[in-house]
Amino acid sequence: MSNAAFTRLPGFRDFVPEDLAVRSHIFEAWRRVSRRYGFQEYDGPPLETLELYVEKSGEEIVSQLYNFTDKGDREVSLRPEMTPSLARILADRSRALPKPIRWFSIPQLFRYERQQRGRLREHFQWNVDVVGESEVGADAEILAVALDALRELGLGPEAIRARVSDRRLLSALLQTAGVPEDRLLAAYAVIDKVEREPPEKTLERLQDEAGVTPAQAGEILALFQNPGLDRVADRFGDQEAVAAEVERLRDYFSILEAMELGDFVEFDLTIVRGLAYYTGIVFEIFDRAGELRAICGGGRYDRLLERVGGESLPAVGFGMGDVVLTELLRERALLPDLGRELDYFVVSVGDEARRRALQLAHRLREQGARVAYSLRGQGVRKQFKSAESEGAREVIVLGPEELSQGIARVRDMTSGEEREVQLEELERGP
Amino acid sequence: MSNAAFTRLPGFRDFVPEDLAVRSHIFEAWRRVSRRYGFQEYDGPPLETLELYVEKSGEEIVSQLYNFTDKGDREVSLRPEMTPSLARILADRSRALPKPIRWFSIPQLFRYERQQRGRLREHFQWNVDVVGESEVGADAEILAVALDALRELGLGPEAIRARVSDRRLLSALLQTAGVPEDRLLAAYAVIDKVEREPPEKTLERLQDEAGVTPAQAGEILALFQNPGLDRVADRFGDQEAVAAEVERLRDYFSILEAMELGDFVEFDLTIVRGLAYYTGIVFEIFDRAGELRAICGGGRYDRLLERVGGESLPAVGFGMGDVVLTELLRERALLPDLGRELDYFVVSVGDEARRRALQLAHRLREQGARVAYSLRGQGVRKQFKSAESEGAREVIVLGPEELSQGIARVRDMTSGEEREVQLEELERGP
Repeated sequence: MSNAAFTRLPGFRDFVPEDLAVRSHIFEAWRRVSRRYGFQEYDGPPLETLELYVEKSGEEIVSQLYNFTDKGDREVSLRPEMTPSLARILADRSRALPKPIRWFSIPQLFRYERQQRGRLREHFQWNVDVVGESEVGADAEILAVALDALRELGLGPEAIRARVSDRRLLSALLQTAGVPEDRLLAAYAVIDKVEREPPEKTLERLQDEAGVTPAQAGEILALFQNPGLDRVADRFGDQEAVAAEVERLRDYFSILEAMELGDFVEFDLTIVRGLAYYTGIVFEIFDRAGELRAICGGGRYDRLLERVGGESLPAVGFGMGDVVLTELLRERALLPDLGRELDYFVVSVGDEARRRALQLAHRLREQGARVAYSLRGQGVRKQFKSAESEGAREVIVLGPEELSQGIARVRDMTSGEEREVQLEELERGP
Repeated sequence: MSNAAFTRLPGFRDFVPEDLAVRSHIFEAWRRVSRRYGFQEYDGPPLETLELYVEKSGEEIVSQLYNFTDKGDREVSLRPEMTPSLARILADRSRALPKPIRWFSIPQLFRYERQQRGRLREHFQWNVDVVGESEVGADAEILAVALDALRELGLGPEAIRARVSDRRLLSALLQTAGVPEDRLLAAYAVIDKVEREPPEKTLERLQDEAGVTPAQAGEILALFQNPGLDRVADRFGDQEAVAAEVERLRDYFSILEAMELGDFVEFDLTIVRGLAYYTGIVFEIFDRAGELRAICGGGRYDRLLERVGGESLPAVGFGMGDVVLTELLRERALLPDLGRELDYFVVSVGDEARRRALQLAHRLREQGARVAYSLRGQGVRKQFKSAESEGAREVIVLGPEELSQGIARVRDMTSGEEREVQLEELERGP
């Protein structure tokens, strides 16, 4: 028997009860809101074949995965994201399901990222997807679910905002401004950095990487410096491709207005997200102070399902992680008091009272009450101390005298008031 | 873009919504009962250092693990059980916590077992532990939690039974019957098989492996063929070591009697469980028909915490898996109807009514109602069809006429009855 101190792996978290209570608080809001929108929960295995992730994200992803060869010589990986599992599950089943499919899940996800301060290798992520609906109503519904969960947790439009763009609009604009089709992905990559790089750098990169002239680069940059959907419409609305996309986005915003979520949402062409994956409206939700990474990101991905061998189905969804969200809730003091709670602690004196106390406790639990007591014979004072440290609202005292009268004394631990209650009455419940 | 069909790894499960609903039904009962007993939920990482498991179970365990070398050259393993993580977490913290510590968790666990029909490589396991209490009250409390959760799920004493033994009693009996101390583990291994092997085989193995005479082997075998705590007391009660253990077990059973759980419990010396780990009372819960593997197993393990570098603390706990339990509940038709549920499906006619319908839906959700609607403009008939396939209790119809009167028509989808309701009244909620 060694006596080594064992340690947790770097980048992983323990959830002691205080931490688990915070996690449950968030998970419960996620589940509650999902159900209010008629979504159903599903789950997949935390371990999948490596090829499932390579198919979606390319070989580059492998360096960031917890992948290994299992004892049956299979190349496997801990799941870095949920959507490939969703696509795999639906590939088998979607034909038999009524559309649209509204599913959600709360998987734990894993990435072997270079260890940085506060950078984790696992997190939990709420995944919500509508599959089988190409209309913009599904895009709006998905963002509404995300925003409503954040509202449910106390984050209003003063605290967070959703920045929305559309890949189809961006592509139409860039092509109108002179970007050749085969340079679109390169142009997206430049735009993804437009907020973090100086304008000169962006102009230079647009010419070098997206193959446009200096004048065209200037026109593209102007789009991002002074965006607004109206301005886009004014400047490029005569282009048929652009006009159709503007129209769709206007529908999208008007649906969110009707749902009284308009204050959360703004049009922002700089939101690009994963390069090869999204095919329509994309969004990210940030804290207004702009101090944290994105709380949530998602969008439309109409081509994934067929790539993993399924039916060709349009899809839109998002992922919201627990880490940034917990930081924000803590920072804004939006985590309720999640201490331990006990309805009753039963204190007994003597063997006979102890037996009766066990019976009483059991009957109170049958009514749904949270009840504890000392697990060994102890003096009354020690029992009261335990009642306090366990956070009991009330203490029930049962001794030989109470027993002979068929009563118990019940003390309110906040007010200190004590009353006598018939045992039978206590057991019958409210 | 390939079009390969991707497959799930063997031994892993997908949880489509019907399956997830069953899983949640069980998890919720586990959580509810844990809280009624004053237990607090915790969690640890699904990936730990390999040495943590080797320390508890020896090198032999490695062949059954999902272990690998990570990209930082660490030997790691998916968790095959929860107790080592609990011990690791408490090693750091237990000194600061009031005793006894009552914690529970519902981890997913992984074993690379040879693939057999229906044999899984992952399962979920409810883990419940009391740490820091050596008295028998803690042992009884732990079994009571397990039994109450099964009662909560509909399994009464006619369906299941807990078989209880005690390592200390068994050791005292075997030593009294002539087994040398250094052969105790070998004798446990024989007894563990006593139900599945013919008596002659047991007699032979006791002589060969536990080092006793034919007469002693016969005496030991008789203990298991006709057990009963009274018989043990009659035959061996004059031995001080045995008498003390019998007394403790009597206390244990009388506590469970007081909690009105006596009908579930029987003394059964053949219950041995993990060889080197348990130190006191051990138990397993089975279906009465005896057709399935154990539903639950646990017991006292007083020496684990110090082995992983923590305080020396007594501990007692159990694990209850989801697989056998789900089988039993399904077999006994104890899974409630877990189909999809929606309070309202909102049907709208025309653009203006659609906008108003979105607002209405949003306000109903704020009251906690589960609400859906078509995500694209559709005819009334199609919308009603969706309402049906989504399992809506009521359909709210909103058209231009209703809108002009400030009302909605609400149809009960079971009775088919329809009534008119003021929109404002609907939105104010009950």
